[in-house]
Amino acid sequence: MTEKELIESGNMKMDWARNHMPVLAIVREKFEEEKPLKGLKVGMALHVEAKTAVLVETLAAGGAEVSITGCNPLSTQDDVSLALDTRKNISCFARYGVESQEYYEAIDRVLDIKPDITIDDGADLIFKLHTERTDLLPNILGGCEETTTGVHRLHAMEKEGALKMPVIAVNDAMTKYLFDNRYGTGQSAWDGLTRPTSLLVAGKNVVVAGYGWCGRGVAMRASGLGANVIVTEVDPIRALEAKMDGYRVMKMADAAKLGELFVTTTGNRDILTAEHFKSMPDGAILANSGHFNVEIDMEALASLAKSTRTVRHNIKEYDLGDRRINVIAEGRLVNLAAGDGHPAEVMDMSFANQALCVRYIAENKLSNGVHKVPLELDTFVAKMKLKSMGITIDELTPTQECYMSGWECGT
Amino acid sequence: MTEKELIESGNMKMDWARNHMPVLAIVREKFEEEKPLKGLKVGMALHVEAKTAVLVETLAAGGAEVSITGCNPLSTQDDVSLALDTRKNISCFARYGVESQEYYEAIDRVLDIKPDITIDDGADLIFKLHTERTDLLPNILGGCEETTTGVHRLHAMEKEGALKMPVIAVNDAMTKYLFDNRYGTGQSAWDGLTRPTSLLVAGKNVVVAGYGWCGRGVAMRASGLGANVIVTEVDPIRALEAKMDGYRVMKMADAAKLGELFVTTTGNRDILTAEHFKSMPDGAILANSGHFNVEIDMEALASLAKSTRTVRHNIKEYDLGDRRINVIAEGRLVNLAAGDGHPAEVMDMSFANQALCVRYIAENKLSNGVHKVPLELDTFVAKMKLKSMGITIDELTPTQECYMSGWECGT
Amino acid sequence: MTEKELIESGNMKMDWARNHMPVLAIVREKFEEEKPLKGLKVGMALHVEAKTAVLVETLAAGGAEVSITGCNPLSTQDDVSLALDTRKNISCFARYGVESQEYYEAIDRVLDIKPDITIDDGADLIFKLHTERTDLLPNILGGCEETTTGVHRLHAMEKEGALKMPVIAVNDAMTKYLFDNRYGTGQSAWDGLTRPTSLLVAGKNVVVAGYGWCGRGVAMRASGLGANVIVTEVDPIRALEAKMDGYRVMKMADAAKLGELFVTTTGNRDILTAEHFKSMPDGAILANSGHFNVEIDMEALASLAKSTRTVRHNIKEYDLGDRRINVIAEGRLVNLAAGDGHPAEVMDMSFANQALCVRYIAENKLSNGVHKVPLELDTFVAKMKLKSMGITIDELTPTQECYMSGWECGT
Amino acid sequence: MTEKELIESGNMKMDWARNHMPVLAIVREKFEEEKPLKGLKVGMALHVEAKTAVLVETLAAGGAEVSITGCNPLSTQDDVSLALDTRKNISCFARYGVESQEYYEAIDRVLDIKPDITIDDGADLIFKLHTERTDLLPNILGGCEETTTGVHRLHAMEKEGALKMPVIAVNDAMTKYLFDNRYGTGQSAWDGLTRPTSLLVAGKNVVVAGYGWCGRGVAMRASGLGANVIVTEVDPIRALEAKMDGYRVMKMADAAKLGELFVTTTGNRDILTAEHFKSMPDGAILANSGHFNVEIDMEALASLAKSTRTVRHNIKEYDLGDRRINVIAEGRLVNLAAGDGHPAEVMDMSFANQALCVRYIAENKLSNGVHKVPLELDTFVAKMKLKSMGITIDELTPTQECYMSGWECGT
Repeated sequence: MTEKELIESGNMKMDWARNHMPVLAIVREKFEEEKPLKGLKVGMALHVEAKTAVLVETLAAGGAEVSITGCNPLSTQDDVSLALDTRKNISCFARYGVESQEYYEAIDRVLDIKPDITIDDGADLIFKLHTERTDLLPNILGGCEETTTGVHRLHAMEKEGALKMPVIAVNDAMTKYLFDNRYGTGQSAWDGLTRPTSLLVAGKNVVVAGYGWCGRGVAMRASGLGANVIVTEVDPIRALEAKMDGYRVMKMADAAKLGELFVTTTGNRDILTAEHFKSMPDGAILANSGHFNVEIDMEALASLAKSTRTVRHNIKEYDLGDRRINVIAEGRLVNLAAGDGHPAEVMDMSFANQALCVRYIAENKLSNGVHKVPLELDTFVAKMKLKSMGITIDELTPTQECYMSGWECGT
Repeated sequence: MTEKELIESGNMKMDWARNHMPVLAIVREKFEEEKPLKGLKVGMALHVEAKTAVLVETLAAGGAEVSITGCNPLSTQDDVSLALDTRKNISCFARYGVESQEYYEAIDRVLDIKPDITIDDGADLIFKLHTERTDLLPNILGGCEETTTGVHRLHAMEKEGALKMPVIAVNDAMTKYLFDNRYGTGQSAWDGLTRPTSLLVAGKNVVVAGYGWCGRGVAMRASGLGANVIVTEVDPIRALEAKMDGYRVMKMADAAKLGELFVTTTGNRDILTAEHFKSMPDGAILANSGHFNVEIDMEALASLAKSTRTVRHNIKEYDLGDRRINVIAEGRLVNLAAGDGHPAEVMDMSFANQALCVRYIAENKLSNGVHKVPLELDTFVAKMKLKSMGITIDELTPTQECYMSGWECGT
Repeated sequence: MTEKELIESGNMKMDWARNHMPVLAIVREKFEEEKPLKGLKVGMALHVEAKTAVLVETLAAGGAEVSITGCNPLSTQDDVSLALDTRKNISCFARYGVESQEYYEAIDRVLDIKPDITIDDGADLIFKLHTERTDLLPNILGGCEETTTGVHRLHAMEKEGALKMPVIAVNDAMTKYLFDNRYGTGQSAWDGLTRPTSLLVAGKNVVVAGYGWCGRGVAMRASGLGANVIVTEVDPIRALEAKMDGYRVMKMADAAKLGELFVTTTGNRDILTAEHFKSMPDGAILANSGHFNVEIDMEALASLAKSTRTVRHNIKEYDLGDRRINVIAEGRLVNLAAGDGHPAEVMDMSFANQALCVRYIAENKLSNGVHKVPLELDTFVAKMKLKSMGITIDELTPTQECYMSGWECGT
Repeated sequence: MTEKELIESGNMKMDWARNHMPVLAIVREKFEEEKPLKGLKVGMALHVEAKTAVLVETLAAGGAEVSITGCNPLSTQDDVSLALDTRKNISCFARYGVESQEYYEAIDRVLDIKPDITIDDGADLIFKLHTERTDLLPNILGGCEETTTGVHRLHAMEKEGALKMPVIAVNDAMTKYLFDNRYGTGQSAWDGLTRPTSLLVAGKNVVVAGYGWCGRGVAMRASGLGANVIVTEVDPIRALEAKMDGYRVMKMADAAKLGELFVTTTGNRDILTAEHFKSMPDGAILANSGHFNVEIDMEALASLAKSTRTVRHNIKEYDLGDRRINVIAEGRLVNLAAGDGHPAEVMDMSFANQALCVRYIAENKLSNGVHKVPLELDTFVAKMKLKSMGITIDELTPTQECYMSGWECGT
């Protein structure tokens, strides 16, 4: 495709996404009227595809100057990146398949605009700000973090006293993690798995590592597609939940022998390792739906392999001699690297939270540390989403409110 | 049955329950050895049936003197009550079908032992202690509360500065509410619904009021039994979850016209009212799986009815002239009043928490107010439960622990 | 209860059932008007409970004289039996818990009326007619058979040339087996299992023997209640279906080691035998939802047991020394012997088929052998059922009919 | 891509498919040894993609000369077509996106080899043989038909006495339609729907037209993905099943107002028409998973539209002025035109049946008319599939066999 065709394609994708993000549309309309971000610069490192692009244009509509790059080398869609870069007040540095050096250079270029506010998915910008670019910290009003893994690390930083800016844990908004992580990942991980493999899920032993919100989404959809699901966990309470949800629960060392499809969703590292590769059945398929590409020990797999080859677009086969193991998208986020990422309808809620939190940071002086998304923003997103679906719900009557808040109404 | 036969029957029920409560058995064994409750008096108001009886004997095994009555006029099983009352150091005042006056007198009798520790399901003992029996408050080390509704009210009391004793919100232990409220209520509400009705659930329009842990359990099982589920809610985020879980979501005024079976799980009052009764289809069946019998407005229904009659054991038909409405167990907790309450396996976890929290109160000086169940107790219960199921799970390696707690490991 | 109270109770149960059997009501209304069975005698051997009673009164309403007994020693509800026996033109000989001799004597008494038409559930009447009571055969216009097992045997008789009367395989009506066997057994087997056990289904390993219509109903509901389901089969195609439906499939010898609850639905014998009892985990629970009490080898179990005792109403524990095995309702049909049988709504369809087939036999001269339910009766039942549910469906347009019947309309 | 690259890509796809078709591999091995098709010519019109190619090479391995074209203008994968055409004894005339004339010319070219045996998916070859190419009929040993629609038409031909050759209804093998139509279509229709749309299925109103094996597969997976499913049917028995499966059932005229995603699976025409388009909500998405592109009335839609545009690859938007309607893949088979067709694992069974039936035709003299797949072939496929999955099942003991075939074993 020519650049012009790529831009057209990117714009078409953005149109489609925008049409399915009604809550963000309500926010954008308000932003256009009120220009709450006027004069502010926003630096972003997110998966650069159509839904993100709609967030970016929303921020720009609010008056911001936006600079963005990717947060994963394989999740960028080049047509969208180009289309975005043509817009006024928007610069986009993301490119699909970049090597590590270019990846980190792009993060620097985003920071070069001296952002007032950052938006991260995995805290890349914030890490850079706290290591090589500490000079920019004083200028920062605050940041937003999109993902469980990022929030987890920010809490670790905060605990050590290392976090020198306010950050809103957008991931922890209920209208974000309950939907994006569960229904979003649940569906999009399977989109990313079936697209390159074209295999039947029904009747397969599917091993899901981790039973957090992502894991239970992936397990729920695996089951909905007819799989027999095995869950591995380190948390005994979550393990019990998985068991009561009808799944088998066991150690990965045991699950490895039984699994035909493996999906990691833990946010941790070394979930699938040499020990497991050696006991997996021939033809096992591995995918990562966590955050970083450290859940599957790709190095160990490579060193066990006698040879490798591409067997389908986005699938590499590792031949261990007595068995072959297939890895999707190099162990990177399967839904983005082998699919189109989350459905627009869930990103609608996640990104409406992002836009509202950026505004919240702009309008409020926050202390350094990790902040929750204000409940009224969370609730606003839920209400607008229900409205866009044409759903009306009950409201508490004064008698009911009183009953719930009092304690003297008896048996 | 003669009293002897009743006692035998009660003992048989307790044996069965005990056999399916392995975590509580571990606790009991330790209690027997260590007698941590020696010299203490425990006053209880819980549903008096077999699982509760196993908790009571566990406390007695720990050295306590226990006095107990019911927390709902229709949930007592008389055989269990009698069998319990014959045990050493245990007095039981509960009787099935008591009138209001006798119900509250029994609560007084429980308090007459001057308990050091209380266990409530709905906070009846604590209310009495804060109103008519305030003289006993100074003696109290603390209390445990079993249910969402009770905890809710204790928080209201605390907020108003009215709570004059420490209370542990046992309900809020993860090994309690995630299991008891969801899988427990989910199954037992349907046991209580199908036992008296003997009707098909498949293909029915089932309206579930409330999408908290109980409501989602009830909806999940309704769906598992083949129903078409409609959810009503007042919380927009929960309403969205119900929608994404595949259910229809609407106002009760609309659901009332469509529903064939209605189950309330809100913990609030006036969920089904005159307005709704008038638009329900002929033959609609109503049940309450919340806490108190105020979710269905029974008075309004009675005054709309031209006549009533018992159409099956535990089902009363209200004939409104142009339509008939059937109510199960007078609108009281359907799983206990029309079934055998929660399965022993979930109460195993809830009551292991209770026993451990009673010990915790005995061994620690707590401040007045509502306390959480200590995480280590919660986790202990989960671990023992997994063990009793023969399930082993993974543990974090040091590298993984470091990865999760650090923030410098990059992309 | 006094006899009067029993009759009242039986009548109340019949009222409730009748209210939930709208298709049979339509048939009954027509029967009352047209009296198509006037002068005919109908002999029946069916489970004598409320739904069957509504069929019996329907036949009587059509002008028939009806004589009925049970088809299983533990499935009779005495109150219904008594209530039925008081009706005009109806004699009922069924009694709960009869010994073998009385059971077969009652069958003789039913035949003593010299029936023109028989209705069987398991072909007991027809066997007797072909062995000890062949003198009655010349009088017989035909019979109806209700269940898979009975039909199976009638086909065996026909194949051997031993069947000397026409029989309609009512079981094989689509509006019967697709609903009664699947949704009916599916739900009522679990009603029968949870009522005596009060145990949690979620998280349990449930072994379902057989994946015919009953078996898939039982497996579907087990899964809907949160169980982890294992299926055993002898038919490779059904075994594959079970696998693709997400269940584990294995030999019973392997499943026996894993199962916590076992349900047999095969219609065959020796499904659970000494070999299996010896490897089951302690506390395993066994139930039969097939037809005869030969699926679980009760004799073998008894001879393995060191002792037995009743541990709950309808549950007998067999203590094998190193493990205890619990059997529900002596291995007889669990839904009837430990529950109230199928929901009225599915029996509505099954029994509407029965009533229509009795009329069909009365009005048509059938040849000896097994006959299908005429498709127009089957379709009529489905249409009336949809109508009673307020459901309207599409109809083929002439163009569509032509398209479906022609072959020349191309790509 | 260059032709060489295309061929490489086609070969890679065939490798992947072959690896997941173990039953066909067993058949192929035998074919290679025994050459049962030596000297025979096989003419085929099937979807030309990787799985089909594995069938073609299997037939060639058996000694046949094979000539093949597509059976749908949009289902050909050009790389596979080219790769296939390079093989010895194989000619492939299929090309993606051909116009009607070229499509039918290719069918003629296939017939030009004067086939002994035909394989059809939709009976195109057979129609041509019975209309323009009747001269070839005397040479024909028999044909195989793959799909419900084709079989349906062959029955219509047979009924009219127009069918002048033997045809095996491969579609009606249990190991074909129970798996391919249900689990195959069930998954692949959703693959085809989510790939171009990238939208969330959870929470959407999905209308499934038709509740045959394809329809129930599509509905089952929709539900598994979190949709709220509405079924439309013309058959009252199937409509009842859909209702009991928990779905809403209504006329399409009513469903059209509620649906957000529509999937047709009827095999009939005029399922979605002008009347429905006019009442659908803005943004409705339509897909066909039946056979021919006549289920959605594309002409009527085009003439209602004020304008049309491509909004995503494979999605055309029809702007009706007050609402926009999106159609996937021009209303052609969504799983093939917008996805990769059925998973290899189900085609493994369907195509093993095809290969075995071709051999059966070669080795048996069949009479003109529609024949069933011999049960032993069907069972063989199931057994081999189970074996390839490592599953062992029970076998009937002699006592059990006797019990099942006899009729004298009593209650």
